[in-house]
Amino acid sequence: MKVVSLSDVEKKEVNMEGAVGASKQLPLGSNDGAPVYSYRVFTVEAGGHTPFHHHPYEHMNYVIEGEGALVNAKGEETVLKAGDFALVSPDEKHQYRNKGDKPFKMICGVPKQFE
Amino acid sequence: MKVVSLSDVEKKEVNMEGAVGASKQLPLGSNDGAPVYSYRVFTVEAGGHTPFHHHPYEHMNYVIEGEGALVNAKGEETVLKAGDFALVSPDEKHQYRNKGDKPFKMICGVPKQFE
Repeated sequence: MKVVSLSDVEKKEVNMEGAVGASKQLPLGSNDGAPVYSYRVFTVEAGGHTPFHHHPYEHMNYVIEGEGALVNAKGEETVLKAGDFALVSPDEKHQYRNKGDKPFKMICGVPKQFE
Repeated sequence: MKVVSLSDVEKKEVNMEGAVGASKQLPLGSNDGAPVYSYRVFTVEAGGHTPFHHHPYEHMNYVIEGEGALVNAKGEETVLKAGDFALVSPDEKHQYRNKGDKPFKMICGVPKQFE
């Protein structure tokens, strides 16, 4: 059993090519004993975005705060706001963009072997 | 790719023995194409709680709103507040209690075969 507050979790800048103004936290992962899944949190600053890319595992998101968009393989945006859940399937090309003037913060779960 | 707002997801009362004032939503699960994990949301009303029980799979929580407690096998409470993450390991006895006067709402992720 483990309880951790997001505000106490180290935040690291995302240095991947194509990422702008994005940082990552890992409140629960395999180092915490998570048997199957890892819960990461991404914060995207105003004007920022994650890479427009794909990979062989899914994302499962919950939007904590802010206004953003989830971009599909065709470049089309779907609004993401606080209280929304999103699923990006394995191998789907995607990007998360901040569309507001405050930080856009979301949980991004992945199978533990990928984080 | 799927986006769903929590407010649009059907809410069902939890009828398990030992549950009081608890309801469940399933914003993302295997019916949505989730390959590995299911994201459920539990809402526990003031004075309510989930069953004090154990099972062979973990819980991975994020507290959306409210004030609650996570109870361990010894009956000891750890505070859970908005912005907290929690991991309950497989086979650990546990209970979630609302400790405030407003609804206590949290994500409760489990491997998809269990929900």
